[in-house]
Amino acid sequence: MEQEISKAVIRRLPRYYRYLGELIDADVERISSAELSAKMNVTASQIRQDLNNFGGFGQQGYGYNVKYLYNEMAKILGLDRVHNLVIIGAGKLGQAIANYSFFEKRGFIIRGLFDVNKDYIGRKIKDIEIMSVDTLSDYLKKNDIDIAAITVPKDAVESILDILVDSNIKAVWNFAPVDIELPENIIVENVHLLDSLMQLSYNLTEYEQTV
Amino acid sequence: MEQEISKAVIRRLPRYYRYLGELIDADVERISSAELSAKMNVTASQIRQDLNNFGGFGQQGYGYNVKYLYNEMAKILGLDRVHNLVIIGAGKLGQAIANYSFFEKRGFIIRGLFDVNKDYIGRKIKDIEIMSVDTLSDYLKKNDIDIAAITVPKDAVESILDILVDSNIKAVWNFAPVDIELPENIIVENVHLLDSLMQLSYNLTEYEQTV
Repeated sequence: MEQEISKAVIRRLPRYYRYLGELIDADVERISSAELSAKMNVTASQIRQDLNNFGGFGQQGYGYNVKYLYNEMAKILGLDRVHNLVIIGAGKLGQAIANYSFFEKRGFIIRGLFDVNKDYIGRKIKDIEIMSVDTLSDYLKKNDIDIAAITVPKDAVESILDILVDSNIKAVWNFAPVDIELPENIIVENVHLLDSLMQLSYNLTEYEQTV
Repeated sequence: MEQEISKAVIRRLPRYYRYLGELIDADVERISSAELSAKMNVTASQIRQDLNNFGGFGQQGYGYNVKYLYNEMAKILGLDRVHNLVIIGAGKLGQAIANYSFFEKRGFIIRGLFDVNKDYIGRKIKDIEIMSVDTLSDYLKKNDIDIAAITVPKDAVESILDILVDSNIKAVWNFAPVDIELPENIIVENVHLLDSLMQLSYNLTEYEQTV
């Protein structure tokens, strides 16, 4: 059985991927863990440990081949294939996500937006049509969608989850300010904006008490 | 000297605060760590350990007084005072944040929105005026603003940071897809949406390899 990778490591993986992408853009072909360490503000031993979880990738005295490590990291992150998304909730946040071109570049393709608001339905954000939530269940049965982003108000979450549980959705990207519970065959990733702001506030308060 | 609280604990604090708020809404007056544990899907010993970092708050055989713990948690998170914010970048994401009423309820008051786009400048989101980025430096000198949320494209980040470093801003809430570097007297909290989506993709890929 494979060793379980800790959440802290998983949280750092996208960062490695981002930095390696920047190195490629800057035509850097190889990099030592010491150089990568200085750039990323992580210790070199942390980097070696993190990457050893996946087999290493470095060569003693040579460092890392940037392009190779970038591609391997993409595979580890599942970015070597296309993911189809729908966004449920076509308000400002849902529209912001639909507009964000970085997702598509990494293979996350937004196929549809859903909302209850009749004023939105039928309109388009980029090329993506806003459809009625009433048609969501049917849409998910007919289309091969992996991920549902939820950007609806708190009170609307439960009814959306009922629809998703009854579909082939594999993962939920939740922006609603609640911790959602789903069967374990559906992956959940939360973006709790208020939690993030409270962490900022905590760190600010802590800092002010030390100076 | 005070013991340093780990990032993992800090990440859980807003969640405690959210759950305690829900208990108050449901008129629950006290709760055992076992009950809180079942509700939050964290072990009871983890809860006790986390709260012991701040002095405990529980009474043997009685559990936690919900209202008291909620108020103490608010103080720990710095929510017992008002924070003034500006949002830099009045695109969809900036507008979504400006529209989100939960922030104001917790004392995070958005005072101004800034953008380079002439079509936006002068318009209002709720009561908040969109102003020109050219006036940002001056605005920050004349107003008591704690936090700047950055929702501009990657390429615009550097010039914004130059302005912020030269102001009295205490914290930056960064949504741009870069790791920003600032003097250590400015707290940084990042919301990297693409990183979050890549973590989801990692977990999805992992899960599919185990079934």
